[in-house]
Amino acid sequence: MATVIQKTFGEISLDTNVKGDTSSSNISELVMDGLDEDIIDPWTVVSKSAKGVDYDKLIARFGSSKIDQNLIDRIEKVTGKPAHHLLKRGIFFSHRDMHEILNSYEKKKPFFLYTGRGPSSEALHLGHLIPFVFSKWLQEVFDVPLVIQLTDDEKFLWKNLTVEEARHLAVENAKDIIACGFDVEKTFIFSDFEFIGMCPAFYQNMIRVQRGVTFNQVKGIFGFGESDCIGKISFPATQAAPSFSSSFPFIFGDKKDIPCLIPCAIDQDPYFRMTRDIAPKLGFRKPALIHSVFFPALQGAQTKMSASDPNSSVFLTDTPKQIKNKINKYAFSGGGATVEEHKETGGNCDVDISYQYLRFFMEDSDRLDEIRKDYSSGDLLTGYLKKELITILQGIVAEHQECRKFITDDIVKQFMMPRKLKFNF
Amino acid sequence: MATVIQKTFGEISLDTNVKGDTSSSNISELVMDGLDEDIIDPWTVVSKSAKGVDYDKLIARFGSSKIDQNLIDRIEKVTGKPAHHLLKRGIFFSHRDMHEILNSYEKKKPFFLYTGRGPSSEALHLGHLIPFVFSKWLQEVFDVPLVIQLTDDEKFLWKNLTVEEARHLAVENAKDIIACGFDVEKTFIFSDFEFIGMCPAFYQNMIRVQRGVTFNQVKGIFGFGESDCIGKISFPATQAAPSFSSSFPFIFGDKKDIPCLIPCAIDQDPYFRMTRDIAPKLGFRKPALIHSVFFPALQGAQTKMSASDPNSSVFLTDTPKQIKNKINKYAFSGGGATVEEHKETGGNCDVDISYQYLRFFMEDSDRLDEIRKDYSSGDLLTGYLKKELITILQGIVAEHQECRKFITDDIVKQFMMPRKLKFNF
Repeated sequence: MATVIQKTFGEISLDTNVKGDTSSSNISELVMDGLDEDIIDPWTVVSKSAKGVDYDKLIARFGSSKIDQNLIDRIEKVTGKPAHHLLKRGIFFSHRDMHEILNSYEKKKPFFLYTGRGPSSEALHLGHLIPFVFSKWLQEVFDVPLVIQLTDDEKFLWKNLTVEEARHLAVENAKDIIACGFDVEKTFIFSDFEFIGMCPAFYQNMIRVQRGVTFNQVKGIFGFGESDCIGKISFPATQAAPSFSSSFPFIFGDKKDIPCLIPCAIDQDPYFRMTRDIAPKLGFRKPALIHSVFFPALQGAQTKMSASDPNSSVFLTDTPKQIKNKINKYAFSGGGATVEEHKETGGNCDVDISYQYLRFFMEDSDRLDEIRKDYSSGDLLTGYLKKELITILQGIVAEHQECRKFITDDIVKQFMMPRKLKFNF
Repeated sequence: MATVIQKTFGEISLDTNVKGDTSSSNISELVMDGLDEDIIDPWTVVSKSAKGVDYDKLIARFGSSKIDQNLIDRIEKVTGKPAHHLLKRGIFFSHRDMHEILNSYEKKKPFFLYTGRGPSSEALHLGHLIPFVFSKWLQEVFDVPLVIQLTDDEKFLWKNLTVEEARHLAVENAKDIIACGFDVEKTFIFSDFEFIGMCPAFYQNMIRVQRGVTFNQVKGIFGFGESDCIGKISFPATQAAPSFSSSFPFIFGDKKDIPCLIPCAIDQDPYFRMTRDIAPKLGFRKPALIHSVFFPALQGAQTKMSASDPNSSVFLTDTPKQIKNKINKYAFSGGGATVEEHKETGGNCDVDISYQYLRFFMEDSDRLDEIRKDYSSGDLLTGYLKKELITILQGIVAEHQECRKFITDDIVKQFMMPRKLKFNF
C-alpha cells in the first residue's frame, strides 16, 4: 500500500491542509490506484512501498548525484575537519554541484549557505532541526555566511492563517532556529512578509524569475492547477530569489556571482531545479544543493503524520517525561514480539524508529555501530535501545529549551535586521 | 472593419509588444473574423466599428455608471468649484461609487486619489497627461492626498526591458508627471521596483490579494494563458494594492478604511473590478473609480498607433515646428475635400482630430462651442481650426518643457520618498 506523508520546507510536518484544492484528490486517487513510483514534491511525499521512499530511484529521477565516499573525503580534506555524522551516515545523501562549490572554495572563492523553513506551527519537532544542525556545521567548517528564509507568505497562501499569525509563527520559529547556536555576525534570518518590503534588490530578483517561468512550467513542476490562487502560482520565484547573492546587497555588495549552497530535504528540490533552470538565463549562477532524506514519524517511516496527533513526533517543547512516554509507547519497534523471539531472530534496525532516530541524533558513531550490531543480533533488547534514545533526546531537547529561554525578541531582531555580515566579499 | 489600438496604463501608447504570446493571435483572429462587440482590456482596444469604441455599450457591459449632469452638479456643489472641462465634456464619462465618495466627503471623511502609469517609453505624448491633469484638479478641489504608481515591474514583465531600463523610464516619466505641477506635500509617487522593497505593508496587501484570486479568475478577466509567465499572472495584485489605505502606513497611519478614488482610462477597469470583488473579503473598502475615454491618434480614432511612427501623436518633447507640422500634415480632418465643398457641407467635428484634441485641451468652453458651430456650418476652415489647435498645443508643450527643466533627480527623490503627507487622518 502506498503511504502519504505531509511536510513543510524540508521536513515532515504535522499539518494536513496542504497544496490547496487540486492535489489532495489527485494524490488520494493515486494512493487508491497504486503507484508506479514515489511522489515527492514540496507538499507531499507518497511512497509506493511500505519500505518508504526509494532514495536511489529518486536520485535517478531528479537527476541529482549520490553523495559517495569520494565526496565526503574531499569535504574532509578541504575543510580539514571530520565529516558530520549526518553526512557520513547518508542522511544527507544527494547533491548537485558540490564539487564545483569545493573547486571554487579551494581557489579561495567563498560561497554562501541558504536554507529555510515554512513557519506553519509554533512548536518545532526534532526533524525540523536537521537542516539547521547541518547548516550550522557547514557554516562552521567552511566559515561562510548563511541566509535563512522563513516563508511566512507561503504559509499564509497555503494555510488558513492571517498575515499576523504567519508573521508571529516566523518570529517564534526564528527563536528555535537561533537556539541552535548560530553566530549573529555570520547569519541573516528573514521573514518574507517583513524583508521583501525592506529590500528592492530582492523584489527585483523575484520579478526577474517570475518573467522567466510560465504557468505551464509551474504546473509541470509543482502540479498547480487553474483553480489555485495566483499567489501560489508565483510563489516559487520567492523561494528562488535567495539563491542569488544579488538579492542581498547589504551582505554581498555588488558581487552578483557568489556561489550558493542550499542544504535542504530532497522534497524542496523542485524549487531549485526550477531555479537552476532559470539562473543562467538571468546571468546568475546556479545554486548547488545538498539533500537530506525525510525524518520519520514515531509510528514508522510509512505512517501518515497527523496534525491532531501530538504523539507522532517529539517536539522541542516536550518535557523529559513526555519524551520518555512517547518513545516507549509510540516509537515503532523492529524488535521481536517477545524477548525470546528477539534473542533468537534479532531486531530489524532498518524499520526500528528508535534506531533510526539514533542515526540522526547520536554523535558517537562507534557506539551507534555497537548498538546496530547488538540489536541486530538480538543481544540488545528494545527497551535498552529506547532507553539510550530517550536519554539522548531528553538531553537535546533540554539543552534546546535552555538556549531558547535566552532568545529575546531583541535578539531575533538582531538576526533579522538586513546588515553587513562579518565577511569581506 | 474592426480596428486595434494598443495602449498602456490608462492611455493609448505607441508600443506594439503587448500581452505576450497568447493574445495577439487571438485578437488578430477576432479582427479577421469581425467582432460582435468592442474588446477593451489593459493591453488592447479593438473596436468593431469604424466610429471607434461605443462607450455607452461599454458602460452597460462593464456595469459602471454614466456620469450625468446630476453628478457633475453635485461635484460642483460639494467642492464649491466649477467642474473641470474634462468632466463637463464627457471625456471622463463613467464612474463607480462616486456618490459614495461624495457622501462621505460631505460628512468630513476624506478620501485619497490613486492613479498611475506604466512607464514603457521615455517620451510621453499628450494623451498620457490626461489622467494627471484630471487627478491634479481633483486633488486641488477636494484637497486630498494622491498616490501615483509607476508600474515599472509590469513593463519589465510585458516588454523586452531590463530592470534598470524599466526603472530609468519610471524616473523619467516621474519628471513629466511632476512637471504637471503636483504639490510635493500632498503627492506620493512610487515605482514598484523601488517602493515594494521599502514597505512591508504594501507587499502584505499584494499577497492578501494574491491569495483571493485564482488563475481561472485572471484568465477570465485579463485573458492570461498557460504559456504566460507567472509574473504576469500575479501582477494584477500589484496594481490592486494601492487601492487600500493600509498599503501606505506612512501616509495613513493605522487607518485602514480611508476611501480611495481612482481616475483612469476605462481600459484599466478590469484591474479594479477584480480589486472591488476581492476588497470586502479582505475587510477593505472597494475603491471608487472615474473613467476617461481613450485619447485618439492623430490619424483618427480608428487608426492603429505604431511604435515606429512618431507622427501618430504629439510628444511632450516636440518642438513648436514639429507640432505645427504634425498637426498640419497628419491630423485627420473632418472637413470638406475642397474649400468649396467644406463651405457647402461643413466639417464633421466627431471625426475631426483637431477638433477632438481641442475638446481635451482648450479650456475656454465658449470658444470651443463657437468653433464647433462654425466648423460644422463650414464657416471655419480646417486650416484655421488647425492653427488654433497648434497655438494651444505649442503653449502646453512649451510650458511643460519649461517646468520639466527644473525637475531634478533630487526633486524626483522627494516625491518618491515614503513619508507623511500634509494631511491628518
